[in-house]
Formats: sequence, C-alpha cells, structure tokens
Amino acid sequence: MKKIAITLGDVNGISPEITIKALNFLDLPKDKVVLIANSGILDFYRGNYDLSLEKDYNIIEIPFDKNNIKPGEETEESGEFAFKALVKACELAQNKEIDAIVTAPVSKNALKMAGHNYSGQTEILEQYLANTNQHAEMLFVCEKFCLYLFTRHIALSSVAQYITKENLVNRITYLNESLNIRLKIQNPRFALCSLNPHAGEKGMFGYEEINEIIPAIEELRNSGIDIEGPFAADSLFTDCYNGSANYNCYIALYHDQGLIPIKLMERYSCVNTTVGLDVLRTSPAHGTAFDIAGTNSANAESMIAAIQLAIKD
Amino acid sequence: MKKIAITLGDVNGISPEITIKALNFLDLPKDKVVLIANSGILDFYRGNYDLSLEKDYNIIEIPFDKNNIKPGEETEESGEFAFKALVKACELAQNKEIDAIVTAPVSKNALKMAGHNYSGQTEILEQYLANTNQHAEMLFVCEKFCLYLFTRHIALSSVAQYITKENLVNRITYLNESLNIRLKIQNPRFALCSLNPHAGEKGMFGYEEINEIIPAIEELRNSGIDIEGPFAADSLFTDCYNGSANYNCYIALYHDQGLIPIKLMERYSCVNTTVGLDVLRTSPAHGTAFDIAGTNSANAESMIAAIQLAIKD
Repeated sequence: MKKIAITLGDVNGISPEITIKALNFLDLPKDKVVLIANSGILDFYRGNYDLSLEKDYNIIEIPFDKNNIKPGEETEESGEFAFKALVKACELAQNKEIDAIVTAPVSKNALKMAGHNYSGQTEILEQYLANTNQHAEMLFVCEKFCLYLFTRHIALSSVAQYITKENLVNRITYLNESLNIRLKIQNPRFALCSLNPHAGEKGMFGYEEINEIIPAIEELRNSGIDIEGPFAADSLFTDCYNGSANYNCYIALYHDQGLIPIKLMERYSCVNTTVGLDVLRTSPAHGTAFDIAGTNSANAESMIAAIQLAIKD
Repeated sequence: MKKIAITLGDVNGISPEITIKALNFLDLPKDKVVLIANSGILDFYRGNYDLSLEKDYNIIEIPFDKNNIKPGEETEESGEFAFKALVKACELAQNKEIDAIVTAPVSKNALKMAGHNYSGQTEILEQYLANTNQHAEMLFVCEKFCLYLFTRHIALSSVAQYITKENLVNRITYLNESLNIRLKIQNPRFALCSLNPHAGEKGMFGYEEINEIIPAIEELRNSGIDIEGPFAADSLFTDCYNGSANYNCYIALYHDQGLIPIKLMERYSCVNTTVGLDVLRTSPAHGTAFDIAGTNSANAESMIAAIQLAIKD
C-alpha cells in the first residue's frame, strides 16, 4: 500500500464532505494517509452535519478561519486555502514523504480571486512536479477503460499544430510506460481518435490522419505498442459505450472530444489522474458542485475510487 | 398530412428492411407515399425473409438486378441505385410532386465506387435542392430536443474560420425560422456550444467566444431569438442528458462536438433532418449497419420516426 497525501480542495464546495465520507468508508491504516486540511473546517462539518472523521488521521494544518466557510460561494479565502494545500502536497512529494497525491476538487475562479491564475490543479501540479521531459496530461481511469487527453486547455484552432507524428510517438510511448508502471496495466491496448470527422475520409476533410497520425501509429506498432486507429470518435465512443469496442485506453486528441463522452458515460465511477508528473496524482472526475454544497447529499463514489487508485501498490 | 417520397437507400445494408418494416408499422394512406425503389429488391425480401409491403404503395422503379443484392457488401451497383433513387426524389421535389423526402441510409463508399464523390446524402441534396441563400446542415430531431451542426464535414483546423459573428447571426436566424416553419416549434429556446474548452475561460484558451460568439448571441437576442451561451459543451450535454438543461435546440459548432453526444444519448429515437433545403428531408440517425444486413434483425424505430416527422403537417 502506498502512502498518500489528500488535499481538502475548495472548502465551499462538496470537497470536505466527500473527503470525510470517503476516508470513513475506506478506513485506511493511519500511517498511510496525510490529510492536508484544517481542523476548524473539520469541526464545522462535525458541528453542522454530524459528519466527522472516524479515525485520527495525521493532519497537516493549512491556515483558515472557519467563519469564512460559505457553502456554494467562490471566495478569495477558499482559493488561497486550496492553493496552499496543493503546494504543501507537492512539497511532500518532492521530499519523498508520500508516494501519491489525491486532490479534492477546487474552483478555478476562487484560485484566481486569490491571485493564482491557473486553469486547474493539473497546471499547478505541472509547475511543481512535472517530469522534465513530459507535459502533464489528464488520464481518466474508469472501471473498464481509461481515456487520455492528448491536448487539454488550449484553443480549438491550435489543436492541429500539436498533432504531429513526433509528438504522438513520444507521448504515447510515455503513456504506455505510465500505464505499465503506475496503473499496472501490462501491454495496454490503445484506440486513437482521429482529428477530423470520419477519420478525414482519406484526405477529403483534412490531412493530419494521412501525414501524421497513421505514420505515428505504424511507428508505435513497430516498437511493440498495441495501438489501433485512427477511429472516428463518434463511432468509437458509441462502440465503447455499448461494449463492442474494448480497448484499455482511448486517446482523445482534444478537450471536448474526450470530456463529452467521459462525462456522458462515466459520471461517478471515473477517476481523473495526471500522466507526466513524478508522482501519481488522482482526483474525482467531477467538480466542486457548489449547487449542492452544504447539503450533506454529495456522492463520494468518485473520491473513494480516486483514493483507492492512489493507494494501490 | 404531407406527401412524401421515400428512397430505399443501400440495398446491401439494412435500408430496405427498415423501410418495409416502417411502412407496415405506420400503415399510411396510399396517396401520401411514393416509394423510390425496385420491385426485384422487394421480391427478394419477400422471398428470403417473408418480409413484404402490406400495402400497395406507388413505386417508382429504379433499375437494379436483384441477383446483385449482396448483404453486407459495398458494391458499385448498390451505390448507383442509391444515387439514382436520391436524384429522382430531388426531381419530384423540384416539380412539387412531393412535400418532403425520407432517405434510408446509403454507403458513401458504394457511392464512390459508382463514381459519385460525395461525403453523404446531405451533400447530394444540397447540390440539387439547396435554398440559394443557405448551406444545407444537419439537424438531429430527438424526442425532447434538437441538435444542429453548425459545420459538418470539414477539417477540424478549418472550423474556427467559420465561427464568425456574421455566420452565426445569419444561420441561427434561418434555423430559428426553419424550426418554426418546418417543425412547428414556436419561439425555440437555443443553447449554443462554445468553440473552445470551458467556453474559452475569458480568453485564456481562444478568443472566438469574446470576439464572435458572444456578440452574435447579443445580436440574436436583440432580434428576439431566445438563445443562451456560449456553454462548455461537455457540461451542457451532461446537463441535457440528466435533464437539468432543457432547451429545444442545442447548437454544436463542429462534427464531433455534436455527433459524439447525439450518438451516446439518442441512438434510435432520433431523426436526421436537413436545414437549408427547399423541402423537408428526414433520415434515420444511424447508418447502413452492414454488420447485421440480411439478418432481418434491424430496429426500424429511427426510420419510423423519420417518416412520421416528414409526413406531419
């Protein structure tokens, strides 16, 4: 079992609630968990929702005044707390005090209100923990398959310039190793989405398949990686959903191509992980859910899965 | 009730089967239906699957040798038949002999084998029947909502150049009229997808939202059209799926952004229609399904819905 740090995320969302619920459900050994949190926030949940940690886990305190808890609101204070907790987790990882990080959801806007201009936690982790040869990219790990985003938070008009044979070969080779090492998937079977509609229809709608993607697939296959494609994404994900495709890892080339199907197919059973960092990082695949914050009705399933994946040897 | 032409589609796919099943299920008045087909093909289905038309509909004959029926194969003969049937339907529409066209699925490859280089039936209809001011674009009509594709069969790298304020205002104004006139949806409520991830995050990932899309929405709203957005597509379609968004018409800006969710959410209850033609055209939202051709096991639900939508006053 690995040793993990868990960051409490945005205190005004469902993050503290799902973290407490998940830890109580999992009942992990005390010496395997470091909770980067604040005792006042845990007091608030105990007092208001009769929701308290059932085990005396090691807590690293991040300053926060519990009077500033405002369920459903984005505040500077919650953004600052979330940021500091994440930076602390990176510090523990750099010092090899932990083997993996689980991050509860944060609010990008709250981070910005606190002066931290990142488009998400992945970008912060990338800055502090990136493997120097690699970008950090999102890999969603679901019960039956994974989905990797080849590009993430960039303009749609910029996507095509990243779809080069060199990038594809380099990054998918690294992804293949990561799945082997971090997730213990031996010889994963990959399905690669096309960039253009209908896989480009032999050049009728774009040449990236012919010039970059198909040559990359050939080179990857020659190096022993089990990859097929390029597949029209709409058909591929329909086949994945109805069970007639069963690859270990689907590779989407841009944000909406991956996020639309993953959200429609796997809302709670899916874990967001980051490939390209020096440690394993996992996170629930949903956000802060401000709309139900403070109602003690959040579903902790994805947070439980995130912790289980991080702690597994 | 409108008068419709039905084209039999690719004879080697499920198209003849679902057409016969749908017509038998619907039992329409004889004078409202023209079937563009071939008696030999209908004989083949009667003889081989005990599947025959239960009513003596008016048939316009397109030449085809029934010995060339090869279920599951793409052939030049089937492509030529499908093309000629479609051109005949256009001729009837141009001569005002019918009010709407229902097209059973065809194979693009078979069309090509017969020398007709189109990326689909919509492109053929566009050439013969386009309203001179408009592109023909796909509108999927489902039970509870519609989904419109703003661009269709073009390279992903070309999409952004079509997302201009002028195009958006012009085309959505026309779409609004089409929904009113053709589908009898009064004052439809539109939801417009963003081009970039997270609706561009205020310019962090692309400027099309700020420079083109938001100004277009403002102009459309000022002209009385009920439109909201731009919305991050992954969240919007998740909300659509779980019922927390309930617009009449979702507008996707490019192929995969619309086709991925529509295929995952609504495989059979959805009808493909074309906006921008001089007549209403409907079609099932699925393809030729060569894998189950000749097994008499095809689901005619989407073809039934396509005919029902076309014939409705």
